[in-house]
Amino acid sequence: MSEGARTWLILDGFIPEESSGPQESHEAICVLNTSEEEARLSISFYFEERGPIKGVEVVIPPERTLHLRTDQLEGAEIPRGVPYAMRVGSSIPVVVQHSRMDTTQPALSLMTAMAYPVTL
Amino acid sequence: MSEGARTWLILDGFIPEESSGPQESHEAICVLNTSEEEARLSISFYFEERGPIKGVEVVIPPERTLHLRTDQLEGAEIPRGVPYAMRVGSSIPVVVQHSRMDTTQPALSLMTAMAYPVTL
Amino acid sequence: MSEGARTWLILDGFIPEESSGPQESHEAICVLNTSEEEARLSISFYFEERGPIKGVEVVIPPERTLHLRTDQLEGAEIPRGVPYAMRVGSSIPVVVQHSRMDTTQPALSLMTAMAYPVTL
Amino acid sequence: MSEGARTWLILDGFIPEESSGPQESHEAICVLNTSEEEARLSISFYFEERGPIKGVEVVIPPERTLHLRTDQLEGAEIPRGVPYAMRVGSSIPVVVQHSRMDTTQPALSLMTAMAYPVTL
Repeated sequence: MSEGARTWLILDGFIPEESSGPQESHEAICVLNTSEEEARLSISFYFEERGPIKGVEVVIPPERTLHLRTDQLEGAEIPRGVPYAMRVGSSIPVVVQHSRMDTTQPALSLMTAMAYPVTL
Repeated sequence: MSEGARTWLILDGFIPEESSGPQESHEAICVLNTSEEEARLSISFYFEERGPIKGVEVVIPPERTLHLRTDQLEGAEIPRGVPYAMRVGSSIPVVVQHSRMDTTQPALSLMTAMAYPVTL
Repeated sequence: MSEGARTWLILDGFIPEESSGPQESHEAICVLNTSEEEARLSISFYFEERGPIKGVEVVIPPERTLHLRTDQLEGAEIPRGVPYAMRVGSSIPVVVQHSRMDTTQPALSLMTAMAYPVTL
Repeated sequence: MSEGARTWLILDGFIPEESSGPQESHEAICVLNTSEEEARLSISFYFEERGPIKGVEVVIPPERTLHLRTDQLEGAEIPRGVPYAMRVGSSIPVVVQHSRMDTTQPALSLMTAMAYPVTL
């Protein structure tokens, strides 16, 4: 049983430049792999003023979730304060959600949306 | 008339460790059963560093909603401060939404997303 | 051209009891009718501990949007501080989103989700 | 490869009249064009008490994202403090998300939802 889709798109990426209090402003991609196989992800990052960064790779073990911070990636540095978007490809169907914590001002704010599944 | 899907996935689960003010940081699964039969749910919880907890059971009467707090489950204790994901199975089609209230800092923050329906 | 679906479900309804500052805690159903006909809506409200309120009627003129506050309905009074869900039926396809403003604490918080379209 | 849909609907548009602190209350439409062609968008704005504004045009280059503020459009002025909705048409499939930052009160709040794809 492998549930979801192999391609997901996330549009409103933005890591705030500033933080206040103990928690840092950040974004996360939340992925769930309900299958008994590992899921090998390949993530691309799109920008407004430059070409994409492609091929950031991440593995999700069987029956595990992963909350991946986009400011702590291995193999790519996403600049803060700049709009970006993401395309998440996976070797098997998974499901993807995207969330932001903004601590620019002293009271944190959260937002979240399920990513958009591309069904080819 | 039974509306929705029998399987729903929720990705960005996280119950904050801290709370301030009169309201406690928490998450809820909101379910609607518009049919004239009861819906028997079976919920699984997935984590990053351990295997899943499966088979937490909940019943929704006909033509009722249920807002189920994930820190007040019978039969499972979800740790605070740890990323988790959920898979909600139902005996008949229902619809599922997931929300978080974060009161870590003195002004609360809310986020919500419709869960992802799996159509097998 | 009539876009969307004829039936929409909203799960996480909750009108906070308290408000602070100039803005009142409230929820709204946001509807868009892109067609050249009027859309006649019939809204039902579901609860945890009692049966549903059915048949609250609202009209959306052609090529108009409506942001309907659920604490200012004609023909139904939704209690504050109680979880509820909604089923929005329409004479022609429309699209429905649901949002909450919570001003319980001195800094307001917002959350929103597109409703779930039932495709019979 | 052109991913998404050619028509998207956004319901809960509202640009708050007031702002506090360094960040202005605003909304943005976030679009991703993963294809190797440019996407030509045509955006319509719907209101409660007047007819729509149609035909605001925007171009997204190949493999780029765009975060378009609705208070900084060329060719249309969306009033603050008034509910509105949007219909985004595109020459090729794209994906669209909508977000609001509300800084009416001293702590900002965010909300976001994927737009609704119309599949004709």
